Amino acid sequence: MPQYTPPVRDTRFVLDHVVGLDRYLNQPGFEAATPDVVDAVLEEGGRFVAEVLFPLNLPGDQEGCTRHPDGSVTTPAGFKDAYKQFVESGWATLGNQPEYGGQGMPHVVSTAFQEYMISANMAFAMYPGLTHGAIAALIAKGSDAQKAMYVPKLVSGEWGGTMNLTEPQCGTDLGLIRTRAEPQADGSYAITGTKIFISSGEHDLTENIIHLVLAKTPGAPESSKGISLFVVPKVLVNEDGSLGARNAVSCGSIEHKMGIHANSTCVMNYDGATGWLVGEEMKGLAAMFIMMNAARLGVGLQGLGIAEVAYQNAVAYAADRRQGRALTGAKEPAEKADPLFVHADIRRMLMEAKALTEGLRALCLWGALQVDLEHIAEAEADRQLAGDLIGLLTPVIKGFGTDMGYKIATDAQQVYGGHGYIAEWGMEQYVRDARIAMIYEGTNGVQAMDLVGRKLAQNGGRAVQALFRIVTEEVAAAKRVEATADFAGRLEKAAGDLQAATMWFMANGMKNPDHVGAGAVPYMHLTGLVAVGLMWLRMAVAAAQRPGDPFMEAKLVTARFYAERLLPQTGSLRWQIEGGAEAVMALPPEMFLAA
Amino acid sequence: MPQYTPPVRDTRFVLDHVVGLDRYLNQPGFEAATPDVVDAVLEEGGRFVAEVLFPLNLPGDQEGCTRHPDGSVTTPAGFKDAYKQFVESGWATLGNQPEYGGQGMPHVVSTAFQEYMISANMAFAMYPGLTHGAIAALIAKGSDAQKAMYVPKLVSGEWGGTMNLTEPQCGTDLGLIRTRAEPQADGSYAITGTKIFISSGEHDLTENIIHLVLAKTPGAPESSKGISLFVVPKVLVNEDGSLGARNAVSCGSIEHKMGIHANSTCVMNYDGATGWLVGEEMKGLAAMFIMMNAARLGVGLQGLGIAEVAYQNAVAYAADRRQGRALTGAKEPAEKADPLFVHADIRRMLMEAKALTEGLRALCLWGALQVDLEHIAEAEADRQLAGDLIGLLTPVIKGFGTDMGYKIATDAQQVYGGHGYIAEWGMEQYVRDARIAMIYEGTNGVQAMDLVGRKLAQNGGRAVQALFRIVTEEVAAAKRVEATADFAGRLEKAAGDLQAATMWFMANGMKNPDHVGAGAVPYMHLTGLVAVGLMWLRMAVAAAQRPGDPFMEAKLVTARFYAERLLPQTGSLRWQIEGGAEAVMALPPEMFLAA
Repeated sequence: MPQYTPPVRDTRFVLDHVVGLDRYLNQPGFEAATPDVVDAVLEEGGRFVAEVLFPLNLPGDQEGCTRHPDGSVTTPAGFKDAYKQFVESGWATLGNQPEYGGQGMPHVVSTAFQEYMISANMAFAMYPGLTHGAIAALIAKGSDAQKAMYVPKLVSGEWGGTMNLTEPQCGTDLGLIRTRAEPQADGSYAITGTKIFISSGEHDLTENIIHLVLAKTPGAPESSKGISLFVVPKVLVNEDGSLGARNAVSCGSIEHKMGIHANSTCVMNYDGATGWLVGEEMKGLAAMFIMMNAARLGVGLQGLGIAEVAYQNAVAYAADRRQGRALTGAKEPAEKADPLFVHADIRRMLMEAKALTEGLRALCLWGALQVDLEHIAEAEADRQLAGDLIGLLTPVIKGFGTDMGYKIATDAQQVYGGHGYIAEWGMEQYVRDARIAMIYEGTNGVQAMDLVGRKLAQNGGRAVQALFRIVTEEVAAAKRVEATADFAGRLEKAAGDLQAATMWFMANGMKNPDHVGAGAVPYMHLTGLVAVGLMWLRMAVAAAQRPGDPFMEAKLVTARFYAERLLPQTGSLRWQIEGGAEAVMALPPEMFLAA
Repeated sequence: MPQYTPPVRDTRFVLDHVVGLDRYLNQPGFEAATPDVVDAVLEEGGRFVAEVLFPLNLPGDQEGCTRHPDGSVTTPAGFKDAYKQFVESGWATLGNQPEYGGQGMPHVVSTAFQEYMISANMAFAMYPGLTHGAIAALIAKGSDAQKAMYVPKLVSGEWGGTMNLTEPQCGTDLGLIRTRAEPQADGSYAITGTKIFISSGEHDLTENIIHLVLAKTPGAPESSKGISLFVVPKVLVNEDGSLGARNAVSCGSIEHKMGIHANSTCVMNYDGATGWLVGEEMKGLAAMFIMMNAARLGVGLQGLGIAEVAYQNAVAYAADRRQGRALTGAKEPAEKADPLFVHADIRRMLMEAKALTEGLRALCLWGALQVDLEHIAEAEADRQLAGDLIGLLTPVIKGFGTDMGYKIATDAQQVYGGHGYIAEWGMEQYVRDARIAMIYEGTNGVQAMDLVGRKLAQNGGRAVQALFRIVTEEVAAAKRVEATADFAGRLEKAAGDLQAATMWFMANGMKNPDHVGAGAVPYMHLTGLVAVGLMWLRMAVAAAQRPGDPFMEAKLVTARFYAERLLPQTGSLRWQIEGGAEAVMALPPEMFLAA
């Protein structure tokens, strides 16, 4: 019953007018992204996910994954064949490095494709998604032998990858890890412990699964400084690359969870499994953050991807379902009722969804460009700027992006009325699937603390100052154009709230660190509203230069909606932040339940 | 794994200091509510739901209801026995009228018990909950014979009741109803049609189910003015009250839905079923609204009930789970990590939940008092005031209450991190269950339109003016006391935003009715924040008079939190409302999807 059309024109618009992809075309690292190839990726990639992955989404949720008594796991009907097509059509290799068999497409382009894949089938997209994290960690920290042994088959999609961090007693606080790594005579380690919530931990899509596992070596300190990273293949790999014996790692159970039923979330038992150190001993946290930062951007993209497909369906339903009459008089008097679209409150929800979804698309792709530029921009200053921006924006894209994704999915479900609550219509799945993105890879509260506790202060606040500088410059330019002057003025005001809140943290955070914790989530939302506002400013500027095209007119209307209906929240967020921690922390814990 | 303790002390505090129950003790209609009896209801009722209903909540969700090939429906294991205990212990009759076998407890007291029942097991509570709507409609509009035949057994809980409004093509817009009622020679009607989303439509808890069904008689106009209400028993009742033949109404299927799995949501097929007109022909809408208004308050209470139990569990988890260290330095250095409670962002979520839950409890009970006073206050002016207030507050309690219930359930789940997403912890069920309350008995968008499109303007705005008067008077008094002066000033400012938004609607709504629709939901939230703010003012005033009691100190801290962190939203809501409908309605429908 649900439907999905990849928003190719909007992606193209963002790449052209927000990201400015054409400016980079002749630079090293962007060679693969010729306009024709990018168009083909969007068109053909979009067609693939819509035709092959999307039809499996609702049945995959209903069937879920099955663990068998021998510990093996079967994915829902059709997943194995779809994964085979995914690999054979070359989609697995899109954004990977050519020296390992990848197509070398810039991150900004592969991110566009990933959005479509998530919209079509988030649970499916998580299988290759986790593999990307494993690839990134091995390339950054692995030995040459490890890279040669694992990376090409992960890149090709023949093997899958996982991240093993969480344990029953240990989530955010990785210092609490108990999984042990005992050094063996041959240089390997025997890994013993239990990991939980392992996405794609065991499945039937690939012949091998390469687990990246955090564990502690003997004598390591009881803190996150004592963590090391290990590579632990499900099936041991011989020197010649052929598969050897089964390793002592197995899936103990599959979690029963709220959503993403078609992704196998496993309890993984390591019973003296053979693993090898990746990078240096007790430097696991840095390696882990390489995986984690990529994963966080991928999770932010999940917020966008679910929002987009939920929004599309809500629009279709609002056009199709007839109920009541327009307050301004019947719009289709020949029918027994008008479509839902005539109702201002339905429009309000759809416009919020549209404004946030298109804005988040721009922010995710602009962020992905920074990931590219951080590594391949020619000038050191450009690399630094890109690194600053994506460091600052990663928690915002993850935290604000997924909070909004959940809100949009909920509103889209609301448009359906009672039918939204019924499984066959597919909308309640989007809400359940969107919910996890606010939690995993660091809860959104942890994202907010990363933003205000780490990213704001790094290098004397260089990153946030760079963001303010960009906003200030683009606001000044847009104010000189009549069509964008009002928007620019409103964004300036919102950015003023963000600057004031930033100053407030600087002035008060040292006195009482809880001020920072108490304001962190409002600050993350405030930053998100301003960053998406900057994206809308760019879109409005581009649209204003192209009058007469309905697509561009729609951009201007949506930008106005964003400015009038969403940006005003910045004032109350600032007020909440400046309220500080006192009322938040004043109540003794035992008085929370005074029943 | 989850836990629940009825918040008896808080209920008692609200009854004493917000509702002022003792002022009414000697009035007709309140005779049953002596202090001792009210305490016994809260204590014993709380114990019953915690011990009998709560243990069935999580397993009931996992098992769900089962429809058998003959159309019969089995509720989850334990439900039938628990219902038997519910009836035998007399809880079914609590709030019902003595002339039909009820205990005559005022609505304000039975509402307190209903909150506990919802917290313990929302899906279970819906079975007797729907029965209450049927009782109300029959008492108000039924003939003496109908009352005699059905009401006593509905009151005793021997029989259940349902509301049958929705059809596949017809939700909010009841003019679209197709179910037909053909008059028969004996004065009965033959009812034919399909009703969907019928909560408690078929089950094994009672020997009979009394369906109240909206249908159209021959020649009735194609609008909501053509609707009539019928009583259609599942099993026909003989003159002597004994059960006769099975009626031609059956459950065609059970919906697969997001939550409330333990309540049977049925497609009901009426195949020439025998029914009798309730009240006058084509006056069904008025009769339906009697059921509906009671149901809407009950649904608002669901927002509160789920919020309370989700909050309680989040508090317990935050005290138990250790992760990381306080930003201000380790609080329990002997342990490997501090409890979650030390983190300001965890506190922020818990304090928001506490402030909203306790505030909504006060609002629900104060609203319930108005339901009592509307009928039994001695002076006409008092009855009118109570009717005005509850008319205005019903959509707010339903809409704001359930939006906040979902938010609180989501935040409580968030406190659990990854464990919140796992079914066995019980938190994701609360989110799924809370979600329906925003949809049924009129979506929250419909509630908002009822508030701004009907309730605001009725009698020249008499109801909202009454609310403003109460706020103004109590603010003025509280400003004269140092402990409450700051809170009162902040509430005054928030009420000023509400007044300004109200004036804006008056000035602009006639010019363009879409202005009203576009601002309706923000206005509902604005009203909710001010109404709950009034409740917190009363609680703060009472607490300030009782220094030295930790419970009262906690009230003052929580009131301060509400004022500093939640009330500031009123400014941005007002701004959204005053932004009007233009940006909301400007985009042509075909441009929503411009992919």
